[in-house]
Amino acid sequence: MQITQQERDAVYKTIFARRDVRREFISDAIPDEVIERILLAAHHAPSVGFMQPWDFIVVKNPATKTKIKQGFLQAHEEAAELFTGERKRQYQGLKLEGIEESPVGICVTCDRKRTGPVVLGRTAKPEMDLFSSVCAVQNLWLAARAENLGMGWVSIVHDDVIRDALNIPQDIDIIAYLCLGYVKAFHTTPDLQRAGWLPRKSLESSVHFESWPEVDDQVK
Amino acid sequence: MQITQQERDAVYKTIFARRDVRREFISDAIPDEVIERILLAAHHAPSVGFMQPWDFIVVKNPATKTKIKQGFLQAHEEAAELFTGERKRQYQGLKLEGIEESPVGICVTCDRKRTGPVVLGRTAKPEMDLFSSVCAVQNLWLAARAENLGMGWVSIVHDDVIRDALNIPQDIDIIAYLCLGYVKAFHTTPDLQRAGWLPRKSLESSVHFESWPEVDDQVK
Repeated sequence: MQITQQERDAVYKTIFARRDVRREFISDAIPDEVIERILLAAHHAPSVGFMQPWDFIVVKNPATKTKIKQGFLQAHEEAAELFTGERKRQYQGLKLEGIEESPVGICVTCDRKRTGPVVLGRTAKPEMDLFSSVCAVQNLWLAARAENLGMGWVSIVHDDVIRDALNIPQDIDIIAYLCLGYVKAFHTTPDLQRAGWLPRKSLESSVHFESWPEVDDQVK
Repeated sequence: MQITQQERDAVYKTIFARRDVRREFISDAIPDEVIERILLAAHHAPSVGFMQPWDFIVVKNPATKTKIKQGFLQAHEEAAELFTGERKRQYQGLKLEGIEESPVGICVTCDRKRTGPVVLGRTAKPEMDLFSSVCAVQNLWLAARAENLGMGWVSIVHDDVIRDALNIPQDIDIIAYLCLGYVKAFHTTPDLQRAGWLPRKSLESSVHFESWPEVDDQVK
């Protein structure tokens, strides 16, 4: 099946317009059929040995969101102590999640035992199943953006908080807790770039040919 | 920026038409500007704390590909010994890489030290930087598909083989070795599904609401 040039450009537009959203969520409900479409896109991610190790838990219950928000607040306070001076002040001023403002949360997991102990393609690289679930997150993110839905990945929360809030068994790995919702607007650049936290690297500094660069060639 | 319904459908078409390609590569060269476009898409993946931990090594040298192919053959032989009976015979009959047939290889890495020891968003979940590089792989994969380029992820090779072949320092994590090329055709279903290795799970079996399902609710 051919992808036309117009379709290709739509994919690029979506990739470049995707943002990690924390501040701009509005409370409008997301129709069930939209959630189903983006989950179907996530479910069509690549997976090692076709094991499809992911599960998706859809969260709308405010009490559950509050538990996860509390976990964020604790982990955020711990994290702030790891920065010093101006960097600490800047960190504390950033808005880094929209757990309660966004109408829907989605937890993505990985069941490493799903298809038995030996998995085709995982034998030499054991983390491949975790990586498969991450590919599902990225499919979900791009599908959400294609639906004009904002999404944010909340990583400043300990896995145990999410495990407890969602009753996830110990032998299931937690990959991501995602917040989804319609937004006031999408920014054209990442929040952390605009805030001056770190600059966008040039593509040239990240691409090398035939070999890792010699030290003298590195411009980073 | 709004994504139109037509653009949305192009994103879904690309997500559903993406395949892990091993057998169908043809030798036609990939224009440099196409490689640059897909790398730019990969470089616009989300990254924890905007650290952009990835590097991309583009491989065209046949001698380098041969080294990696030798590594695959060894890891593949080791893997076959982990299966038994009919499953082993089936595993040995599968075509699982196109390292030498595809004109371009791309190695994606993760530099976990890139922006210092404390990374915004990684403090409670240390694997987030690895996951960022995986998001770059998935962006790259979808961009390649949008360019009608096949891509295969070769995970049946030990990291040390790739590290040695590409002169990658010990403190850089290897995330993926990818094969890219134009193809005779794209299949409509994954190779492993068609081969009867594992079936496609239903979306329903992977989606839960508000909580991990009670044992009685699980239909897997």
